[in-house]
Amino acid sequence: MARIEDIAKKLKVSKGTVSKALNGAPDVSETLRKAVLETAVELGYSRSMHKKGAKTLCLFIENMTYTEPGDFGYDIVTGFRKAAEPAGFVVRVVPLAEQLQAQISYDEYMLQNNYVAAFFLGLSLSDVWLDQLKASRTPAVLLDNRIPANPASCYVGVDNGEAMDLAIAHLKALGHRRVGYLSGYLGSYINQVRYNAFFQALQKNGLPDDPCLAGSAYYSSECLQKHLPALLEQKVTAILCSHDLLAHTVMIHCQERGLRVPEDISIIGFDDLPLCGYTVPPLTTLRQDRTQLGKSAFYALSSLLAEVPISTLLLHPKLMVRQSTGSAPPQP
Amino acid sequence: MARIEDIAKKLKVSKGTVSKALNGAPDVSETLRKAVLETAVELGYSRSMHKKGAKTLCLFIENMTYTEPGDFGYDIVTGFRKAAEPAGFVVRVVPLAEQLQAQISYDEYMLQNNYVAAFFLGLSLSDVWLDQLKASRTPAVLLDNRIPANPASCYVGVDNGEAMDLAIAHLKALGHRRVGYLSGYLGSYINQVRYNAFFQALQKNGLPDDPCLAGSAYYSSECLQKHLPALLEQKVTAILCSHDLLAHTVMIHCQERGLRVPEDISIIGFDDLPLCGYTVPPLTTLRQDRTQLGKSAFYALSSLLAEVPISTLLLHPKLMVRQSTGSAPPQP
Repeated sequence: MARIEDIAKKLKVSKGTVSKALNGAPDVSETLRKAVLETAVELGYSRSMHKKGAKTLCLFIENMTYTEPGDFGYDIVTGFRKAAEPAGFVVRVVPLAEQLQAQISYDEYMLQNNYVAAFFLGLSLSDVWLDQLKASRTPAVLLDNRIPANPASCYVGVDNGEAMDLAIAHLKALGHRRVGYLSGYLGSYINQVRYNAFFQALQKNGLPDDPCLAGSAYYSSECLQKHLPALLEQKVTAILCSHDLLAHTVMIHCQERGLRVPEDISIIGFDDLPLCGYTVPPLTTLRQDRTQLGKSAFYALSSLLAEVPISTLLLHPKLMVRQSTGSAPPQP
Repeated sequence: MARIEDIAKKLKVSKGTVSKALNGAPDVSETLRKAVLETAVELGYSRSMHKKGAKTLCLFIENMTYTEPGDFGYDIVTGFRKAAEPAGFVVRVVPLAEQLQAQISYDEYMLQNNYVAAFFLGLSLSDVWLDQLKASRTPAVLLDNRIPANPASCYVGVDNGEAMDLAIAHLKALGHRRVGYLSGYLGSYINQVRYNAFFQALQKNGLPDDPCLAGSAYYSSECLQKHLPALLEQKVTAILCSHDLLAHTVMIHCQERGLRVPEDISIIGFDDLPLCGYTVPPLTTLRQDRTQLGKSAFYALSSLLAEVPISTLLLHPKLMVRQSTGSAPPQP
């Protein structure tokens, strides 16, 4: 692991200058500061080994609301803080804007801001930084995203295979045989994982698994206008959705078409957002414990900082049975 | 969660009697003690919530040597102790004998011995307790084994998918196209996972993935006498093995057949046992950091005791490139 001396030697400047540049002192030129940061990244200099006092963790948030209790991200952020702050860390929440990623490389951004490690909520497969994370030496934990073969990175989430098994086994016990799946955009890692897990669960439970039993779209309007009618034509008696908000809209659309939930069709969501208890009927869903996800993310991060190379940390999901699932309707 | 009062009420005895029975006092009859234990299990009474002072964890070992440095289990047990004992726990190592499992149920055994949680090294799919673990409420962490849908149980191990990807990508970069796989008994969960991960890695890397490229057997003699010649007939130029000891024997057998390692055939093991540096040639293998596995198992266990429902905790493997792998031989 490189030291300040190594950066100084390479750039032929003094250690004091490197230190000032790393700490953003105003009397270091912008050109030199940039050269120091780039050399630091190139040599693998890591702030975590050198900084004294409280260390700062960066929590990146993209496309995800988190400021209000009830938002998907709120409990995760709170859980993460609850674990990190008593352990002596400072947590900064930073929006993961495309513009930021275009301006500066990930490693440089982390170094420049004295962040020792990052927790990513909602990185998408098209993000520019995703590629840079593959080679980064800065510890990073990603919710619902996986960077393979980088010992400084860890995937945290819920066990989606187990979740789909719980849902399909529940529907099978209620007599359902043809189960459909509606998913958000498959350009996200987590939607791909859930999509595959859905079909694996059908196979495991001995139910039909034709590819035509699933549909996905970036906009939920497309799911509703195109895929939902197609599933109903396929005579599905139950529909699982990749997210609660989608499940709620699907439930309303089914009801508008004159179908009773759950007498004619059963609906299952994913996440257990607070709204699930208040929909009509209340939504059966797969619960992710968001506070525990946040706490687990901090544990994974502190392990990576201690050079314990955790790759994956998954939580057990819980099937929350409410009133949107019931016995399969009698077959004609 | 049931209390001592609940057990006392159900059996119509005093709380003091229940307490004495749970603590194995000599003035409680064997019949009553058994009734108390069975009722405790039935009602979901958990010792972890009630016992004062140091808590005892049970580390079950089956078919696995661990007493000497160099044994597979040694560093795992040591890593586990290193994390558990400073945290105030007592660790007892218990051989997981078939006879024990036949005599007493898992939950009763744990209660009777005041163990608050268990760590299993080497449970096999045919063990009687495996089924009981599915419904047990006592926190249990299993190395290389998975109990689905039990929030009190967690699977700890290395990321086998990533491991197989690392090995296959390494061989592909060396020009190998036909890669074979030899595995221990597929009646163990971990061997099944590695077997499937091998074929997924071939597919991911665009290499041939005929089922005839793999062989498995309970006895390594069968692997050597039946599957190894079959793989060589299939013109494989590299062989991956599910465990280092198997890889070492395969390497010797190849050499006895006049094949040079790695000029004619490359060999890769799995685990990175200390012997890998001393074989001729030294064995390229996939490293599992056993000390970190032990420490991670304790972390998972303490999370389950704190009711954080961790399902899976995997570590990054590391490809240790030594001299048993080299460029693929020129094709005739």
